[in-house]
Amino acid sequence: MNKKDLQDRLRRIEGQVRGIQRMVDEDKYCIDILTQVNSAAAALKAVGMGLLDGHVRHCVKESIEQGSGEEKIEELLAAVARFNGR
Amino acid sequence: MNKKDLQDRLRRIEGQVRGIQRMVDEDKYCIDILTQVNSAAAALKAVGMGLLDGHVRHCVKESIEQGSGEEKIEELLAAVARFNGR
Amino acid sequence: MNKKDLQDRLRRIEGQVRGIQRMVDEDKYCIDILTQVNSAAAALKAVGMGLLDGHVRHCVKESIEQGSGEEKIEELLAAVARFNGR
Amino acid sequence: MNKKDLQDRLRRIEGQVRGIQRMVDEDKYCIDILTQVNSAAAALKAVGMGLLDGHVRHCVKESIEQGSGEEKIEELLAAVARFNGR
Repeated sequence: MNKKDLQDRLRRIEGQVRGIQRMVDEDKYCIDILTQVNSAAAALKAVGMGLLDGHVRHCVKESIEQGSGEEKIEELLAAVARFNGR
Repeated sequence: MNKKDLQDRLRRIEGQVRGIQRMVDEDKYCIDILTQVNSAAAALKAVGMGLLDGHVRHCVKESIEQGSGEEKIEELLAAVARFNGR
Repeated sequence: MNKKDLQDRLRRIEGQVRGIQRMVDEDKYCIDILTQVNSAAAALKAVGMGLLDGHVRHCVKESIEQGSGEEKIEELLAAVARFNGR
Repeated sequence: MNKKDLQDRLRRIEGQVRGIQRMVDEDKYCIDILTQVNSAAAALKAVGMGLLDGHVRHCVKESIEQGSGEEKIEELLAAVARFNGR
């Protein structure tokens, strides 16, 4: 997931969130709104997974290669735990 | 969670997503971006929970009282399963 | 999901957890153990979804029909929120 | 999380799952059973997080130090994605 891909996904998510606001405004059926909310949340999770991916492949890998991976590994594991909703 | 509260939360989430785009643009540190992504995803989940709450208290309850709850119950359980990420 | 189905699933999960203990004992590769842990956790989530399903279709529905659904609805929504990992 | 700690946790989870079977047998209240199911699922997730932790600190780190981290990194990211319920 490169920078352009990330930006495209985030712009689409921003549009989804605006669409949800419109649905609330127009008193759309709550289950239909919920479906859109879940879809935007899943899209955000995918962006998060893409960021984690790039982080491991670059920052963490380089730090370990330079013999200073400990801090990056701690940080990564904390991020994975948070990402997983704790 | 009333309509105004929902709109306020959604507007805040929209702002968060725009903020994340700015962070990506400015090449901010990926773990910091990830923290914001997680925060926006959690805020969306809270909106989803609020919608589910209103749905059960109103639509599902009324349908059951009118003796036609079956369809609403099916729909609710499907929404809970999706909400839970399956 | 009836009582027998629930018991079968729970017995299978118990067996999975015992299998994971054996894998740990035998120093199996951690990613393979993690795969089994995820599989057991997903099976437990499916049992939870089955319980929630039966609860809504019976307890919650009956309470609402008898005009005393408020407490059951509160309890249900709390359970859904917890089920969803908050 | 060392081997003994992992085994202790897994034995406790096995006991929890057996306790849930007893609750089902004795027709305990479904919300109470669900609470135990959620608790066992959370305990399994914690074991999974412990395994992931050990994996990154040892296997992944060593592979990268030996210049052959690519495969381990792929595997790790796939495990994190699955762990996160996709």
